[in-house]
Amino acid sequence: MNRRLEQFFPPLGWLRGYHRSLLGSDLLAALIVTIMLIPQSLAYALLAGLPAEMGLYASILPLIAYALFGTSRTLSVGPVAVASLMTATAVGKVAAAGSLDYATAAIAMAMLSGLMLLAMGLLRFGFLANFLSHPVVSGFITASGIIIGLSQLRHILGIHGEGDTIIELLASLTSNIGQVNGIAAVTGIAGIGFLFWARSGLKTLLVRLGMPGDSAAMLAKAGPVFAILATTLASYFWNFEARGVALVGEVPRGLPAVGIPAFDLRLWSELAVSALLISIIGFVESVSVGKTLAAKRRQRIDPNQELIALGAANVAASVSGGFPVTGGFSRSVVNFDAGAETPAASIFAAIGIALAALLLTPVLFFLPKATLAATIIVAVTTLIDLGVIRRAWQYSLSDFIAVMTTIVATLVFGVELGVLAGIVASIGLHLYKTTRPHIAVVGAIAGTEHFRNVQRHNVITHPSIVSLRVDESLYFANASYLEDYIYGLVAENTAVQHVILQCPAVNEIDLSALEALEAINHRLGELGLTLNLSEVKGPVMDALKKSDFLHNLSGKVYLTHHQAVTDLKPDEIEPYII
Amino acid sequence: MNRRLEQFFPPLGWLRGYHRSLLGSDLLAALIVTIMLIPQSLAYALLAGLPAEMGLYASILPLIAYALFGTSRTLSVGPVAVASLMTATAVGKVAAAGSLDYATAAIAMAMLSGLMLLAMGLLRFGFLANFLSHPVVSGFITASGIIIGLSQLRHILGIHGEGDTIIELLASLTSNIGQVNGIAAVTGIAGIGFLFWARSGLKTLLVRLGMPGDSAAMLAKAGPVFAILATTLASYFWNFEARGVALVGEVPRGLPAVGIPAFDLRLWSELAVSALLISIIGFVESVSVGKTLAAKRRQRIDPNQELIALGAANVAASVSGGFPVTGGFSRSVVNFDAGAETPAASIFAAIGIALAALLLTPVLFFLPKATLAATIIVAVTTLIDLGVIRRAWQYSLSDFIAVMTTIVATLVFGVELGVLAGIVASIGLHLYKTTRPHIAVVGAIAGTEHFRNVQRHNVITHPSIVSLRVDESLYFANASYLEDYIYGLVAENTAVQHVILQCPAVNEIDLSALEALEAINHRLGELGLTLNLSEVKGPVMDALKKSDFLHNLSGKVYLTHHQAVTDLKPDEIEPYII
Repeated sequence: MNRRLEQFFPPLGWLRGYHRSLLGSDLLAALIVTIMLIPQSLAYALLAGLPAEMGLYASILPLIAYALFGTSRTLSVGPVAVASLMTATAVGKVAAAGSLDYATAAIAMAMLSGLMLLAMGLLRFGFLANFLSHPVVSGFITASGIIIGLSQLRHILGIHGEGDTIIELLASLTSNIGQVNGIAAVTGIAGIGFLFWARSGLKTLLVRLGMPGDSAAMLAKAGPVFAILATTLASYFWNFEARGVALVGEVPRGLPAVGIPAFDLRLWSELAVSALLISIIGFVESVSVGKTLAAKRRQRIDPNQELIALGAANVAASVSGGFPVTGGFSRSVVNFDAGAETPAASIFAAIGIALAALLLTPVLFFLPKATLAATIIVAVTTLIDLGVIRRAWQYSLSDFIAVMTTIVATLVFGVELGVLAGIVASIGLHLYKTTRPHIAVVGAIAGTEHFRNVQRHNVITHPSIVSLRVDESLYFANASYLEDYIYGLVAENTAVQHVILQCPAVNEIDLSALEALEAINHRLGELGLTLNLSEVKGPVMDALKKSDFLHNLSGKVYLTHHQAVTDLKPDEIEPYII
Repeated sequence: MNRRLEQFFPPLGWLRGYHRSLLGSDLLAALIVTIMLIPQSLAYALLAGLPAEMGLYASILPLIAYALFGTSRTLSVGPVAVASLMTATAVGKVAAAGSLDYATAAIAMAMLSGLMLLAMGLLRFGFLANFLSHPVVSGFITASGIIIGLSQLRHILGIHGEGDTIIELLASLTSNIGQVNGIAAVTGIAGIGFLFWARSGLKTLLVRLGMPGDSAAMLAKAGPVFAILATTLASYFWNFEARGVALVGEVPRGLPAVGIPAFDLRLWSELAVSALLISIIGFVESVSVGKTLAAKRRQRIDPNQELIALGAANVAASVSGGFPVTGGFSRSVVNFDAGAETPAASIFAAIGIALAALLLTPVLFFLPKATLAATIIVAVTTLIDLGVIRRAWQYSLSDFIAVMTTIVATLVFGVELGVLAGIVASIGLHLYKTTRPHIAVVGAIAGTEHFRNVQRHNVITHPSIVSLRVDESLYFANASYLEDYIYGLVAENTAVQHVILQCPAVNEIDLSALEALEAINHRLGELGLTLNLSEVKGPVMDALKKSDFLHNLSGKVYLTHHQAVTDLKPDEIEPYII
């Protein structure tokens, strides 16, 4: 009972052994994560097209909710790049950017996605994530990264440049290129340059200035904070506002009001498909980060409980005026590297963000949007992995088709159709392959009871027997292929009297395949041939016994293929080697 | 070259050997099929909600088009029950029943479906039909038959009773039950009674009256013709029209005008999904009939050429004012039993129907709709096969779920959602099963080189070696299951030093599974364990060689599992039997 309770409510486990040294590690990690989360929260709110404070709100209660229900010790939940882009795309379809309806729709999206994740968790639907193949996920995140980067160029250049696809974005940017704001552009480009340099150069510099390596590495991650401080000061002293540079502007001070958002059936039904996609993508992203980190410390992740925790986090985001959240890679790695030991670190980080919302918002007025856009652009370059195209190309054609379909569809048709196209392509390719199972004509290796493919080995066969090894489960999609294959083989070969199917790799025979086998048995019978089976697995045999098939079978079922051939071969003719 | 031409244009084959005795057989079959087709064409036009003449038009040019391109010698193409119901459902969504737009939409539907079938044929997409499993097709046709039967009750009772689902139909019928027309009801019920009796009793009676058995059997199939003659005469002499009985009414005399229907993008895009569904269902139905008949005479069907022929038939239906057609079971069986030898029989039947359109239409004025409804109801009872539910239940749970999903969804949500639900359910269930592949821990059978499941056999194992046989191809949907399985096994068992995967049933390792294997190799390496493979198939090995996997593998790849165990087992410890 206790164990089940603990499975549903993991703090019962980790709180039991909690002590002061863990508290110290968790507090330090929380401080570092808080500093990193503030610019990230603001930036992803900008990416989602939402007011800056919603980014902060999405980083308070959701962290606490995940800490209470999540199975990862170190996963950090909050706004992330891909989910924010998907939110912008979905919400942009039902409300005008910047309107009150737009924010309302984003909040509804978090609620809907949260409830879907909770439902999937309670129904133990975690296995659904398996249907997103690695190439599809890599391709999708890569293409999303490219779209995100392009979508932020407008803030860097201080021009209009909206769109959900690469074509819309490029068309919009090029038509407005004449209105570039020089100061915004300098701020943004300098920001990008600094942040790229900070990734490698800042740590080296700090070490050279005498800081210990570990602290220097940590501080170097705070590059975005330095960029924000520097450009906010510049904006204040040189009056960027008067020079037409877009600033973050008024951010309401204080904590979010907590309350259940109004239920709007029309809005919910319009957002439903988008919410499902964002839920699945967020879940896959989060679980893959959680698994990677857990593996490093020999901990385990329970995918179904993760669904519940992410669902709770999104519901928490919605009731506190936030937008869809999930476990993010970069923030989780910072949390992990900073030494977080338990989810308490996330609770402390939530308190840190809450303090920021209470105290720091007046300062944010002067922050140029170009700076936030620069942090997004630099962050998403780590998402873009064009190497997956090369790896897939080298490895297999179907993986290559799946990854290219995903990337091209995401770039050209947007994130939602992109991820759907990827899923459909990968499942379709897999199914297509199984419609043509590998079937080998086999013969005996001289002096043994082993049977091997006649095309690869010197084996003994008998003219009156066709031995076939079927290398796939038989089900509706390949049943007719087997029929055609056997009829084709028998039609060519008039000496045949017996067909034996060797079935060690047949893990299942469904009703369609059973009907195909019945048809084969019947047709061979009409031609005066017997159909025999060998090496049928236990569970398959159990299923066949429930039907009439074995009763009507013209031949027999043999335990081993050797027994079948020994029994069926004519005694008078010597075997010959082909 | 000639052979390829013949493949595309089959008459080049069968015309070459055409001679007088074939002509005789074909002419006789054509006469019988014509007599049967006239009531059937009128009835299915009524079922589709279209004027009677469109049923005749759909039975002239389409038959000739199929005869020119089809690979079945005896398939009879024309309006059929399920496709007519699907046409009614699809067209009813875009136009009011009985309006000119309604007929225009049905003609557009035939064109769209024809072009789709042609495109699928040219792209060689015939394999798509494999994804409709037998239980789904049986369930769908059974549920459609029930809906068709219910939909015709309104004509039997002479009341209103429209709807696409069982709920709509029952609600509409019961609310109008007060307006029953007694004469229509008597006509319809007597028609049903006569037609059911005619199936078995008419032949017996004719034989008893001295007719030879074969001719009696043929004539008994003309039951609907007798019913039509009798009720038309009754209608004429007792003035059914004045008594409020719905009659077929004015049918334009003459042949259809041939012309390409106007292209209407909005209409086409509204009909596109429905046209795709009707194309696939029609194709599957037609090919299964064609295959059954071809098998009886050792002929073969080429599914991709069938797509082209059915496409041509539907385009022909559209340009001559008809509606979607496909190969029908009952009409093809009549054609076959009547002795049709070549598709020339269909061309002659088309001429017969054309003559009927020229000469017989004035007589049809008095034909009560109740008679046509009776022929439909009696015909669809042969489609209803509730036994498929029992067979699926006995055989396997997943087949049962697929068949019930299809039947319930078709009855409750209509034909289109029904067939989609069936396809999604059967593919989803199949994929779900492959996400949890069978993995067996194996050991050696004493004195042999055979390895078997430790749970089923007395086998020899070594404490330092875990031998696993994976009984499924490894791909994205089951890659993480394998990871979890191996980690779970190793975590329980600290004595293990080597893991060997025996891969005789692994037909493919895709990129996602390769990445999972790399992760397993890496993780086992961190724990000080080696990962080894045995009995890897040639094509899989070729693929692995294209990646870094073999280079980084901590263990080795062995040709046989026996070699692997012999190499890895510690020499000093004796094996023990578990």
